[in-house]
Amino acid sequence: MQKQSLLYEGKAKKIYQTDDKQVYWVEYLDQATALNGLKKDSITGKGTLNNQITSAIFQELRKNKIESHFVEMISKTEQLIEAVTMFPLEVVVRNITAGSFAKRFGKEEGALLAFPVIEFYYKNDVLDDPMMNEDHIKVLEIATERQILEIKQQALQVNTALLALFAKADIRLVDFKLEFGQRADGTILLADEISPDTCRLWDATTNEHLDKDIYRRDLGDLIPVYKEVLARLTK
Amino acid sequence: MQKQSLLYEGKAKKIYQTDDKQVYWVEYLDQATALNGLKKDSITGKGTLNNQITSAIFQELRKNKIESHFVEMISKTEQLIEAVTMFPLEVVVRNITAGSFAKRFGKEEGALLAFPVIEFYYKNDVLDDPMMNEDHIKVLEIATERQILEIKQQALQVNTALLALFAKADIRLVDFKLEFGQRADGTILLADEISPDTCRLWDATTNEHLDKDIYRRDLGDLIPVYKEVLARLTK
Repeated sequence: MQKQSLLYEGKAKKIYQTDDKQVYWVEYLDQATALNGLKKDSITGKGTLNNQITSAIFQELRKNKIESHFVEMISKTEQLIEAVTMFPLEVVVRNITAGSFAKRFGKEEGALLAFPVIEFYYKNDVLDDPMMNEDHIKVLEIATERQILEIKQQALQVNTALLALFAKADIRLVDFKLEFGQRADGTILLADEISPDTCRLWDATTNEHLDKDIYRRDLGDLIPVYKEVLARLTK
Repeated sequence: MQKQSLLYEGKAKKIYQTDDKQVYWVEYLDQATALNGLKKDSITGKGTLNNQITSAIFQELRKNKIESHFVEMISKTEQLIEAVTMFPLEVVVRNITAGSFAKRFGKEEGALLAFPVIEFYYKNDVLDDPMMNEDHIKVLEIATERQILEIKQQALQVNTALLALFAKADIRLVDFKLEFGQRADGTILLADEISPDTCRLWDATTNEHLDKDIYRRDLGDLIPVYKEVLARLTK
């Protein structure tokens, strides 16, 4: 497998084409951003940790019959993924009130929601990733009604599997963000990453943050926390 | 019918109880507000016009078998309405791109949407009326899935009737906001007002604003414009 031209540079990873059209090469970077990129820092070791955590989680999901774009980890900071066409959507699943949900609706953080709440955001830095509803997704031709339904169903299956996985690691899965892509045949596939960058994770006993809120809210050093998450997931 | 204690004071109307528990007494005020109340002015004659326009529209909807809380107009600034328990929701229906939709998704104003788009906002001044999706409405126990479906169906029926009504008046119905209430028996009923304060109306030929954007965007004197809308609707 040969790494070829850079296809996409995100806030925390780079994606390259390879000599196999079906496969992309991902490099996890030592970068942390928050506030849609307004806050930005280089944090040595973060790329390695997120690559390992994401790989471990996608492997665990596969054991639970939840497919994803993950092919294999090829170095501490790199993995191979299936080449899919991404929906420009961030799919957020919430189990417990926190973050923008708490702020938007004037709620305290930490309350268990009666059911997992799904939100969609339009992935668009210029527009600051605005929240959107299903009519918006359809009228802007981002996804069809059937695709939205499929994405929601997959997101809820991922939630069920992740809740169990994190519970075994003594971690409460508060909320998380997923992204989905499409194979050439139209199959919808879980993609992107699942890590403390994209999940809000609280220690099951102390409710301490085990996620990027450490960085967003200036609560301390991110690396030992991400190491702790990896250690608990792979213990 | 006796007017009794003040029940609610909104940005542009006051609602009183009456000696009949089933009936409220509404007084339309000469007030205009925008930017969630940050911009506020007294405009002589506005209350009279909105009371007459809303009354004319609710009467026209009734002819189209669309019920509402409207009972009767009892003076130039007052009407009687059925006492219902309001859902704290603003239900926006959009036919053409404009306003916050255009801004949120980086679109030009004036493009016809492929289908009428419905949006929900949580009616809460302190929180600045945040947009919400159907999961939010359910999890915050504002309405059930069945009630949301009923509200959406009624909103689309109102849209169909209003599109025809305004077309006859040479007006394009760009978008509008509805509110709904509930009778004691659970019936969901169209409520609040339908006026140039709550609709975005463009002249069918010139696309000139015939609505509160005149005030929001400082485009001139609001009164002759609202008079024009009333004249066209009742011609």
